[in-house]
Amino acid sequence: MEIQTRQSGCREAQAGGLNAAALISIRGALDMLNGSLNKDETRSTISLCHGDPSSFPRFRTTPLAEDAVVEAVRSAKFNCYAPSIGILPARRAIAEHLSRNLSYQLTPNDVYLTVGCNHAIEVVISVIARPGANILLPRPGYPTYEARSAFSNLEVRHFDLIPEKGWEVDLEAVEALADGNTVAMVIVNPGNPCGNVLSYQHLKKIAETAQKLGIFVIADEVYGHLVFGDKPFVPMAEFASIVPVITLGSISKRWIVPGWRLGWLVTNDREGVLRKTGIVDSIKRYLNISSFPTTFTQAAIPQILEKTKEDFFVCITNAMGEAADLFFRKIKEVPCITCLQKPEGAMSVMVKLNLSLLEGITDDVDFCVKLAGEEAVLILPGITVGLKNWLRVTFATEPKSLAEGIDRIKDFCQRYAKKH
Amino acid sequence: MEIQTRQSGCREAQAGGLNAAALISIRGALDMLNGSLNKDETRSTISLCHGDPSSFPRFRTTPLAEDAVVEAVRSAKFNCYAPSIGILPARRAIAEHLSRNLSYQLTPNDVYLTVGCNHAIEVVISVIARPGANILLPRPGYPTYEARSAFSNLEVRHFDLIPEKGWEVDLEAVEALADGNTVAMVIVNPGNPCGNVLSYQHLKKIAETAQKLGIFVIADEVYGHLVFGDKPFVPMAEFASIVPVITLGSISKRWIVPGWRLGWLVTNDREGVLRKTGIVDSIKRYLNISSFPTTFTQAAIPQILEKTKEDFFVCITNAMGEAADLFFRKIKEVPCITCLQKPEGAMSVMVKLNLSLLEGITDDVDFCVKLAGEEAVLILPGITVGLKNWLRVTFATEPKSLAEGIDRIKDFCQRYAKKH
Repeated sequence: MEIQTRQSGCREAQAGGLNAAALISIRGALDMLNGSLNKDETRSTISLCHGDPSSFPRFRTTPLAEDAVVEAVRSAKFNCYAPSIGILPARRAIAEHLSRNLSYQLTPNDVYLTVGCNHAIEVVISVIARPGANILLPRPGYPTYEARSAFSNLEVRHFDLIPEKGWEVDLEAVEALADGNTVAMVIVNPGNPCGNVLSYQHLKKIAETAQKLGIFVIADEVYGHLVFGDKPFVPMAEFASIVPVITLGSISKRWIVPGWRLGWLVTNDREGVLRKTGIVDSIKRYLNISSFPTTFTQAAIPQILEKTKEDFFVCITNAMGEAADLFFRKIKEVPCITCLQKPEGAMSVMVKLNLSLLEGITDDVDFCVKLAGEEAVLILPGITVGLKNWLRVTFATEPKSLAEGIDRIKDFCQRYAKKH
Repeated sequence: MEIQTRQSGCREAQAGGLNAAALISIRGALDMLNGSLNKDETRSTISLCHGDPSSFPRFRTTPLAEDAVVEAVRSAKFNCYAPSIGILPARRAIAEHLSRNLSYQLTPNDVYLTVGCNHAIEVVISVIARPGANILLPRPGYPTYEARSAFSNLEVRHFDLIPEKGWEVDLEAVEALADGNTVAMVIVNPGNPCGNVLSYQHLKKIAETAQKLGIFVIADEVYGHLVFGDKPFVPMAEFASIVPVITLGSISKRWIVPGWRLGWLVTNDREGVLRKTGIVDSIKRYLNISSFPTTFTQAAIPQILEKTKEDFFVCITNAMGEAADLFFRKIKEVPCITCLQKPEGAMSVMVKLNLSLLEGITDDVDFCVKLAGEEAVLILPGITVGLKNWLRVTFATEPKSLAEGIDRIKDFCQRYAKKH
């Protein structure tokens, strides 16, 4: 049949982007793990692999946020299309919200609404992609950056985060990697997947390095304020007088509503560099041909950002902190896994798999596939975030599930432990 | 400053996609018209340029749809991430909903949820784009297809819709345009921007032509069922046994909730061609790295699709039909504008501008810019949808505004009428 041959050729000839992009997505890895589950398993599946604790009662969002959305829906004033950059009251509220932690004042014109933070990543990567350009990404990192870069044919160069230094950026590596075609570097703080929090001093050094290299910083702060260790959360934008910073964020994590799809991209452009070099116009142009977040959710943003009580945030970060404590205490009981540092923020942590203590396990993927099949526990192989033979574990779950999940991992490891 | 030079070069060197894409967006044209408004104008602005009547009381969505969303929000069960293809109950409900008008049964596996119909367009264009490929688009059309194709470097070839034949597809042109690199053709039915409805016979001929050419049909049915003339709405998928059809749709228009951002892409793939040739896998891969619609809105879909009373639809289509009647009757009073046929569906219509009767107006853009500035009436120049010196007018508005808008257009035309 003619059409069949034609389309088939068409698929094979397709620019590598889409194929390359999907192979490394977390969603792809989750599909693989879910496919490995044993259908005859009677125990419930414990997922320690994604940053979405919204289904657990202790992580339910504040009723105030629900009220704000319901009110916007009931008003029937927000069934309409929104401007491609988002409605002004929401952009103003986000500017105010972020300015509270900055020594300068953002304006609504610095803020663009996106369909969650993933869409903000899509926007920024699409805007900076051009033939020959490259971007510096952290390893381990959040694979959506790699996937969107592959799709846009933007060359990726990886710098390491250093586990022994609390996952700080290897700034020497950054300097060595950058060249005349490097456009930007990405940092994720609080750290996904490492669960670390970067200090004021280190962030300042990142800014100075980027400035020296003539690149700007994309600061993924989707986990902003979700910290429960000794270090406070410092927004990268605080160093925008040193280097232009594009901040990406969302209500998904702090308000535990990842399904609400409301994120933002903010240009912290004190010297007007992003504007003068056309980045700002490109962002607007991309948003003109892209999706926008639900209008009534946009309308709910001022109330959500301005009225949420501090109690709610304290409650959520305490719950995360307790989960991190529990995880760090219990994971020590598992001999083949090393956790170097107690998580200080965000929802996940990287732990090292000591394959030399196991037999019958070839690597991190094999470990996770067998663990899913035999213990109904889902954790992500480190390779999906760039670190082979490490594991990415999400601790943001109910204590009971977390404890049982680690017990099952322990049983699993004991079963595969090398006999002396 | 080093960064400035660097980024500047970077912008200039950028692949044409993003720049080309934005120039032809409707949103871009709207910005231009809004910029032309006279700040000292005391009359209210009348917009006859976009398909969003949701702000008018007579076009308020059914309370049942609002209830469904509110219930989903209040349940707190849908604050979570959704699968990238959408949640099963929503996909099942859409399959059932569309199957009611088909002689075969769709399954949930044929259905993919998108962030409104624009996102569905983005998905399908991104999936079929590859170097050398081309797509056949209608002229006049919906410019998002052109914009997304430009962004994806997919070559566009235009076939005409024939005004004298009720905007039917020029099928001879389609045959002449297609070659071995043509992947698909797009039809928009009910017609945007023409307000026409294609007959069963003509749709069948389109299917046969596409089959003969070995291409598939992308059927944009975002205005599906919004018909108020003599012709019933026939889904293109009814001809899926002749040729594979990808249907794009949304709740935006029929339920008058364009801000809710819930659309779909449906593969009507009776012979498994789209599956075997990798199109289906590519759709899934693209959705893996793309946005998804708000989870609680997805959760509301079964109730919205299954429970909306026929009364509501009748009321909306009657209101549209009355607006179309009013428009067609009153536009005849404007000598320099010709409307060939009363609109039969959707929300807009193409009318011809007779420049020979005017002086001081150079073309459709000049007409629309001056009209905005002098009469505070916004209508889109035909060039934005592919037809120079035509106008695209949206009639889906309150009768009073519509009548006053046409009166103002009449005054404007009389002011610029050639003196004999």
